[in-house]
Amino acid sequence: MQPKLSVPTLLSRVTQPYTPQLVATVNDEYDIKIARTSGPFIWHAHPDTDEFFYILSGTLTLQLEREGVIEDVVLEKGEIFVVPMGMRHRPMGEAEIMMIERCGVVNTGDAAASHLTKVVEDARGAA
Amino acid sequence: MQPKLSVPTLLSRVTQPYTPQLVATVNDEYDIKIARTSGPFIWHAHPDTDEFFYILSGTLTLQLEREGVIEDVVLEKGEIFVVPMGMRHRPMGEAEIMMIERCGVVNTGDAAASHLTKVVEDARGAA
Repeated sequence: MQPKLSVPTLLSRVTQPYTPQLVATVNDEYDIKIARTSGPFIWHAHPDTDEFFYILSGTLTLQLEREGVIEDVVLEKGEIFVVPMGMRHRPMGEAEIMMIERCGVVNTGDAAASHLTKVVEDARGAA
Repeated sequence: MQPKLSVPTLLSRVTQPYTPQLVATVNDEYDIKIARTSGPFIWHAHPDTDEFFYILSGTLTLQLEREGVIEDVVLEKGEIFVVPMGMRHRPMGEAEIMMIERCGVVNTGDAAASHLTKVVEDARGAA
């Protein structure tokens, strides 16, 4: 079985923003990850999965590009939002978040690999 | 697109325990639901999906049956746990929870239908 984990305890050890921590998988199909955000991430899309966001603390702004128009979705603590598959988006702001997406998704999506591209850290051994 | 939703706002309208509210779907494959719990639920298993729990408030005890032995997993606010596919379990206690599981899962799993068996309420139109 996967271990019981405390999200606040794990987040207290995460100092770097945009370094996703894997906290659980469901049916080996979907990953549940947590991360800290700070400032703007990069524009990217996930061509093969929706991406669910739940705001644990702080404020996350998701900039979305829809038919060439930029729209800001401002998410406060306790709010959820799903970025549809293939939609270009850019997270920004100071927040702690939970994400759900298909296993193996790269955090920078279809953007060129960069210093922001992180292998997800499996936090399940650090309970 | 699915609407932005506030989990605390939705939960403030939920008075009955064990009435799951659908707040999002991911890729039309997985449901994210929230619910209030109170007292014991019934023993059941989900033969075809793991079930992820995240504790939003309160304390949820998950009783698990493993090889004929009952084990209690006590989950406090901020803690997560995954009940493996097919494992008999019984939630109990006063809590607000978020769940992730395959679309279409019945809350009472393989237990006989009863007054506890609830069609999930789609909360996405009530933002």
